[in-house]
Amino acid sequence: MCEILINFAFNLNCSSYKMLVEAGLYLIPCQLSDGPLEWDLPAHNTEVVRGIRHFVVESLRSARRFIKKCDRSIDIDALTFHELNEHTDLKDTAAIEALLDPIEQGEAVGVISDAGCPAVADPGADLVAIAQRRGYKVVPLVGPSSILMSLMASGFNGQRFAFEGYLPVDGQARQARLKEMVRRIERERQTQIFIEAPYRNNQLIADLACHLPSRLRLCVASDITGEHQSIITRTLGAWKQANYNYHKVPTIFLLYQ
Amino acid sequence: MCEILINFAFNLNCSSYKMLVEAGLYLIPCQLSDGPLEWDLPAHNTEVVRGIRHFVVESLRSARRFIKKCDRSIDIDALTFHELNEHTDLKDTAAIEALLDPIEQGEAVGVISDAGCPAVADPGADLVAIAQRRGYKVVPLVGPSSILMSLMASGFNGQRFAFEGYLPVDGQARQARLKEMVRRIERERQTQIFIEAPYRNNQLIADLACHLPSRLRLCVASDITGEHQSIITRTLGAWKQANYNYHKVPTIFLLYQ
Repeated sequence: MCEILINFAFNLNCSSYKMLVEAGLYLIPCQLSDGPLEWDLPAHNTEVVRGIRHFVVESLRSARRFIKKCDRSIDIDALTFHELNEHTDLKDTAAIEALLDPIEQGEAVGVISDAGCPAVADPGADLVAIAQRRGYKVVPLVGPSSILMSLMASGFNGQRFAFEGYLPVDGQARQARLKEMVRRIERERQTQIFIEAPYRNNQLIADLACHLPSRLRLCVASDITGEHQSIITRTLGAWKQANYNYHKVPTIFLLYQ
Repeated sequence: MCEILINFAFNLNCSSYKMLVEAGLYLIPCQLSDGPLEWDLPAHNTEVVRGIRHFVVESLRSARRFIKKCDRSIDIDALTFHELNEHTDLKDTAAIEALLDPIEQGEAVGVISDAGCPAVADPGADLVAIAQRRGYKVVPLVGPSSILMSLMASGFNGQRFAFEGYLPVDGQARQARLKEMVRRIERERQTQIFIEAPYRNNQLIADLACHLPSRLRLCVASDITGEHQSIITRTLGAWKQANYNYHKVPTIFLLYQ
């Protein structure tokens, strides 16, 4: 009797809703850091993962680890995995299209990238485009995004913003891009968001502080959701005087007036 | 004995981690639709809400309802609430700054908007800017964002994108903005994301299909996370032929080549 009650309490809590994962393409966000799943993913995501047998993943190793973290009882060997990443030949459209075949059979396909949200600053968009073209159901799940979370915490304009990816490495193209970014901040009140190869983070801050008007504000957001999360907004003038070290730490940058 | 065991199982499950909400400004996302909390918010967010006594909210009524949904046992009358929304006089900086006073006393302040993520296409950024200027800790939590989720599911470029807010209503300014958006799609491969007053959704689709090149693709994402969620990408040519009705449904639009 005692055991039945315990199980009942546990089930009530764990599965207060039942779900069926319908045919379609599910975009499943992954954690940005190593904390507990409850920290940055809704419980629903775990239910979806439990209901999917076919996965398209950025890397096999990290996707398997993530699925095991969702539920240790999942039989990983019963699942199919295909990698889709920067090494994938996107011109081999037949191979890419084949990744969606289970949907045609009435099954669900899950996309998991290494960190954050699939198809945003991460692989996956090409596969989603094919799914959309074929009229399949596409379902994005909630999860952590360094772009969105840094924007929330920057204090910058969240009514207009642009994510620019990596800045050009080359001197002249880089200067032209920075100039255009300042123009869009001043004329359009558009927050500018961008990233850099992590080993050049410190250099980028010095670079911005040196070449752009010192009254502009720079938000440096590093280790989002991690133990050492730090999201700091200062004028470029103040960054010029500040001590900092973001060397090789995952960091995202935001610029505004 | 039986009761003790049940409680033990329940606690293990509910509070497998303990948390202390440190002094700082917490940006607490709210649901976009009426489903269970577990559907789109991490369990951690509820723990944070439990640990906060001072709230700055877009509207009192919806924030109280959200907090009660997080935990019915929270004593709402023991909390302080201040509204910050489009009716707030942002020039009264002393009043706005005062909202952060609890942080000076070592307490946490939570920001809750009516739907989605505070400070992104929602009020809150001005308050965050003050918190950043004062050097307070600013902590964004994970939650649903129609901008991010629609981008994930659109199949469009997630390496470069811009959220433009509302398009200008006026004919000439609107046409100029649309032209510039097409330019940025074609030259910069930048996905364009925007919104419209919900009673003009259908008109906007007709408008885009009429004025822009028919080979461009439009993604229409409506009722995100809701029961009638629909995220559909088609060429403008196909939208022109399609039957649709998004009248007064919360909808977000994405345009790409």
